Amino acid sequence: MIGVSHIVVDWGTSSFRLWALDRAGAVLAERRSAQGLAASAAEGFETVLETHLAALAIPEGVPVMMCGMVGSRAGWVEAAYVDTPAGLDRLTEKAALVPSARRPVRILPGIAQRGAQGSDVMRGEETQLLPLIREGFAGLACLPGTHSKWVRVEEGKVSGFATFMTGELFHLLRSASIVAPAVDGAATVDPRSEAFARGVGDGLAAPDMLGSELFRLRAAWLLEGAGPDAALARLSGLLLGAEFAGAARFGGRGPVALIASGPAAALYRAALAQAGVATVTTHDAEDCVRAGLHAAAVSAFRLERMSA
Amino acid sequence: MIGVSHIVVDWGTSSFRLWALDRAGAVLAERRSAQGLAASAAEGFETVLETHLAALAIPEGVPVMMCGMVGSRAGWVEAAYVDTPAGLDRLTEKAALVPSARRPVRILPGIAQRGAQGSDVMRGEETQLLPLIREGFAGLACLPGTHSKWVRVEEGKVSGFATFMTGELFHLLRSASIVAPAVDGAATVDPRSEAFARGVGDGLAAPDMLGSELFRLRAAWLLEGAGPDAALARLSGLLLGAEFAGAARFGGRGPVALIASGPAAALYRAALAQAGVATVTTHDAEDCVRAGLHAAAVSAFRLERMSA
Repeated sequence: MIGVSHIVVDWGTSSFRLWALDRAGAVLAERRSAQGLAASAAEGFETVLETHLAALAIPEGVPVMMCGMVGSRAGWVEAAYVDTPAGLDRLTEKAALVPSARRPVRILPGIAQRGAQGSDVMRGEETQLLPLIREGFAGLACLPGTHSKWVRVEEGKVSGFATFMTGELFHLLRSASIVAPAVDGAATVDPRSEAFARGVGDGLAAPDMLGSELFRLRAAWLLEGAGPDAALARLSGLLLGAEFAGAARFGGRGPVALIASGPAAALYRAALAQAGVATVTTHDAEDCVRAGLHAAAVSAFRLERMSA
Repeated sequence: MIGVSHIVVDWGTSSFRLWALDRAGAVLAERRSAQGLAASAAEGFETVLETHLAALAIPEGVPVMMCGMVGSRAGWVEAAYVDTPAGLDRLTEKAALVPSARRPVRILPGIAQRGAQGSDVMRGEETQLLPLIREGFAGLACLPGTHSKWVRVEEGKVSGFATFMTGELFHLLRSASIVAPAVDGAATVDPRSEAFARGVGDGLAAPDMLGSELFRLRAAWLLEGAGPDAALARLSGLLLGAEFAGAARFGGRGPVALIASGPAAALYRAALAQAGVATVTTHDAEDCVRAGLHAAAVSAFRLERMSA
């Protein structure tokens, strides 16, 4: 491949995304797969990576910057957490080198919060935040996902954050709980549906009733034959509403930067608007992680010299 | 078996409990098994029941009163819900006859709540409440379980109730979520432990933070190496505290009758005391369900005549 300067990879629990970038960060090629952490550990992380690189004919010596769970204890090489308050420079400085790799491969660390603010961790979201921080962003950012993050950025640093298990609870409840029959056969959640909006409203107004409202999804199905689409939309809304009620403690009712992609983006935008939260900006999470990895690669690999 | 007047059975989603009683309700024999709904449907409800009765040499013609999920749509015969406000007499009158059974077999209905109070259902707990209602109980009752019930009793009737998915959430989170590794290897929850008490306090004070506190169980394990016993106790405490915060809407901070057995009884007693809730009385759930079934059997089968 001609003009490739470096490779960036977002390697998570359940997905692998790789981009070949030129020196300016433009995408020359990409690869995606479901080779998450467990599958990759079994196959061998280097084998997985090099197979994708070979498919793109990436020359030896082209360096690779990665982020995500690949840097966890169960990953390829552990990239120890950087503690809050954590700045961009600190993350890049602490990028872990993979000593066994045949080319320069580094993994960005996650961020840990300890002490009075409460133990919390992120891996991957910090990289999505990097481009915003470089552009001078300050305030609260919301990053929806399996484990949604609400992150406070001050003076170019992540000063504190809270993770909500919203996405994981949604998945567990819809697939493995007594609520499952009530949502069986439902398609995706429509962010414009009344059931979603009511769920958001009820979850926000009474997060203490969440455990009861969840059971009532089943009761409404048993007693009233409530349909699966409305039940799934209400389930999603209740969980988002309860998350927003908690996030309000961090100023989550003021303006926020929403960093999201896929269906979550539309759901969170609709729910944030309903909750009266102004979204100052919305950003595609994938664009953000790629831009963050690019910035880290340029800094860590001193690309102007290496490409000479 | 000599002196047996009738059989009572509590047949739930995951367990089968049968007692042979004399006319006064004293226990002459009992049988227990894990033959819940799914297993019994496959084997045949009558086969399961008659096998247990044969093992106790119960004569033909001895009648059987049952309650629980065996009366649900997925059970042996559906015993349609009685709507709130629901009294003792109504439940017994509406006990469904199993037409195919070779002996008199009846199943008590559950109770449904519809309309403005919110859809909700119970099956089995109403039978646990019967003896209290017969003794003139009025007020709020708490029945912990996979799906905990908070039930208001007025003038001998169940006037309203709310179900909280506390037990099911506990099971899902400890076994199938990202919290699982943090509690792996933990024994049972010690109701006297500080971790449990702190969890109750935090869940009660900030139920909106539940989704975040759950994730922090994992973070504390990752960052601080928090032990599984403390993490499991905190998980249990957080969920109970959040339930109590919701139950407070129904007067759940006033005195309550606690109907529970097994480990849940001690956990709820400790947590209720910590939450400042006075338990007027505590009752063993198994004694209650047996007494309720006995009362219903005496009424439905007119036993003084049948045993002549």
